Amino acid sequence: MDIHKQLEVFWRGTAEIISEEELVAKLKKDRPLRIKLGVDPSAPDLHLGHTVPLRKLKQLQDIGHQIIFLIGDFTGRIGDPTGRSDTRKQLSEEEINKNAETYKEQVFKILDPDKTIVEYNSRWLASLTFADVIKLAGKYTVARMLERDDFARRYQEGRPIGIHEFMYPLMQGYDSVVLQADVEIGGTDQKFNLLMGRHLQREMGQEPQICLTLPILEGLDGVNKMSKSLGNHIGIYEPPAEMYGKVMSLPDELMIRYFELVTNVPLAEIREIEEGLTRGTLHPRDVKMRLAREIVALYHDPAAAREAEEAFKAVFQRGDLPPEIPVVSLAGEELKDGKIWVVRLLVQLGLAQSNSEARRLIKQGGVTIDGKRIDDPELDIVPTAGMIIQVGKRRFAKLKL
Amino acid sequence: MDIHKQLEVFWRGTAEIISEEELVAKLKKDRPLRIKLGVDPSAPDLHLGHTVPLRKLKQLQDIGHQIIFLIGDFTGRIGDPTGRSDTRKQLSEEEINKNAETYKEQVFKILDPDKTIVEYNSRWLASLTFADVIKLAGKYTVARMLERDDFARRYQEGRPIGIHEFMYPLMQGYDSVVLQADVEIGGTDQKFNLLMGRHLQREMGQEPQICLTLPILEGLDGVNKMSKSLGNHIGIYEPPAEMYGKVMSLPDELMIRYFELVTNVPLAEIREIEEGLTRGTLHPRDVKMRLAREIVALYHDPAAAREAEEAFKAVFQRGDLPPEIPVVSLAGEELKDGKIWVVRLLVQLGLAQSNSEARRLIKQGGVTIDGKRIDDPELDIVPTAGMIIQVGKRRFAKLKL
Repeated sequence: MDIHKQLEVFWRGTAEIISEEELVAKLKKDRPLRIKLGVDPSAPDLHLGHTVPLRKLKQLQDIGHQIIFLIGDFTGRIGDPTGRSDTRKQLSEEEINKNAETYKEQVFKILDPDKTIVEYNSRWLASLTFADVIKLAGKYTVARMLERDDFARRYQEGRPIGIHEFMYPLMQGYDSVVLQADVEIGGTDQKFNLLMGRHLQREMGQEPQICLTLPILEGLDGVNKMSKSLGNHIGIYEPPAEMYGKVMSLPDELMIRYFELVTNVPLAEIREIEEGLTRGTLHPRDVKMRLAREIVALYHDPAAAREAEEAFKAVFQRGDLPPEIPVVSLAGEELKDGKIWVVRLLVQLGLAQSNSEARRLIKQGGVTIDGKRIDDPELDIVPTAGMIIQVGKRRFAKLKL
Repeated sequence: MDIHKQLEVFWRGTAEIISEEELVAKLKKDRPLRIKLGVDPSAPDLHLGHTVPLRKLKQLQDIGHQIIFLIGDFTGRIGDPTGRSDTRKQLSEEEINKNAETYKEQVFKILDPDKTIVEYNSRWLASLTFADVIKLAGKYTVARMLERDDFARRYQEGRPIGIHEFMYPLMQGYDSVVLQADVEIGGTDQKFNLLMGRHLQREMGQEPQICLTLPILEGLDGVNKMSKSLGNHIGIYEPPAEMYGKVMSLPDELMIRYFELVTNVPLAEIREIEEGLTRGTLHPRDVKMRLAREIVALYHDPAAAREAEEAFKAVFQRGDLPPEIPVVSLAGEELKDGKIWVVRLLVQLGLAQSNSEARRLIKQGGVTIDGKRIDDPELDIVPTAGMIIQVGKRRFAKLKL
């Protein structure tokens, strides 16, 4: 593929490439580039946010480049020694292996396993000695490290930064040296760490890697980074109807961004859609249904996408119940005198994550049982077989006793 | 020895003890305390400045404590990876071993070798892994490290601090953990590093060490820290006459400090001397001669001290030449037509360290040959056997051809 067309692939949805000039020079060598993505070894449960860099890898894999999927298991093996970081819990050998297997399984829904090198950085980091670490640490200054956004902020605010935290960017950079990466991919929030790879490679006599940053995908709330802990995510393992419905709940302003970052719709077509929306020849709802179909088709298949769409239309455009409501059974010990507290019922059926969420949903008027709105969160219910409980527009359960 | 008397030994000439209360608690346990002094593995050539902590160790050894003399060979093995630090040159295995041997030989002029444990920190530091280093580094924060005087200054002035430099205080502190030190001794400029030992021991569940700091000994100029590179030092291997003469050139104000820090004269007697000087019943010159005798006797013997004093008196009080002038031979190849440039002659004989120093000495009128002052630094000299070259008041050489 000619360099111009390759650059189009590199640039689709991309925030920044440092630098395009150097990337062109590397592409001119006409050999597969070694393209690295590093991930944490925490328990994976991939959502669309994760797929943004993975899809970029897939696109680059498809045009012949060598993808290196790096599992940063070394930090997981150590954990954060201060215990202050939630994201750096110490994991057992077993947990790490299990997470890594799950990760690979999920990632290979997107990447071609036969064309992907999977690496673990403990392979080279675990055997570094104190002397090696000193040499590595000597390649960067305290002042430059403190320029990293989060360090700068914490230092300014007087919040503690452990000295070990200065090691993580150095590790990530050193991974690039060992892997002889030509390109490293990450979110825009990873820019500092990606540049560290460039710096260390140059220091160690290698040609510096290209840093390619991708936008951080906002979640369903349209504001925050998509994340499971915020509950604003669309998981790639969610059932078609759930996935479809969640996409339909996205704010309109995010549609084009989602098309670019998480679908295969060609850029030219996305531009047409964008124009159609601007001119008013396309209805946002129809565009969003297209987006939802595209996404469901990617992680399930086109038939599932169509079915999800039909079901969605049935419920939300005709006011029907969806054709398939999950049938959920209630644990017997929850009943007292044949009754159950409505709050407890919602939690038991998985329709609310906590008592307080259940209360809130009821107070907001979002809970119906057999079509009747529940207003009193203190209500006790006599459960019956086939009873249908609905929360909001899209969550349903049919009771089995 | 009772605790009160022990405390007197701990306090003689000492700048600070952190904390005396904890020291008393340790002494009450009635076991020998493990007292650590760490030194760099650079080429040693001990001068009186070095002897200040060594003498403190000796005093504490004499009252029954266990001295640990730690050679910090690990940093020497690595060197400063940035090459910016002159004091942290990378040394070969051979150099380190040679320096360590020389060090021990010199140190055992002061300490009792049979009662001293000599350690090398590479024994435990070299085998630390990256994971161990992360854990160690996690025990201190960037902000607190930047409070260290020299780091604070350099950070403020925008001068680079390599991240590896944050490791050195951690290493020194960790040495205390491994050695289970009860007390660590150092100059006042080492306070931060000594406190690091306390901090890490506490973090790792040990009773924190006591930090004992000693004043930095000023050199012959009375202003700067004694150091070979400043040329303001008195080496413990210098010949008696040289040593005696150098002490006599000390500013009067330093005499009492020297008595306290580098002689064995009892404190009570030093207080008497001090009073004598204040009241004018003692002449400063006589006090300084006593100081010179004490110091020469320590590193040579009382007879040598007396001889040096006689020789000093002969030259400076009666204007004679000293009785023993070192006889120095001149390398033949230095002669051109049987002559040698006077500047070259001074350097060859070791009476000046460089051509520029030699020129300066001549211009200052401090050089005589056979009693005749040399004013012209461009002069060529015809060397003759037995010719006496004198520089300043105390440096002499007799020529051998």
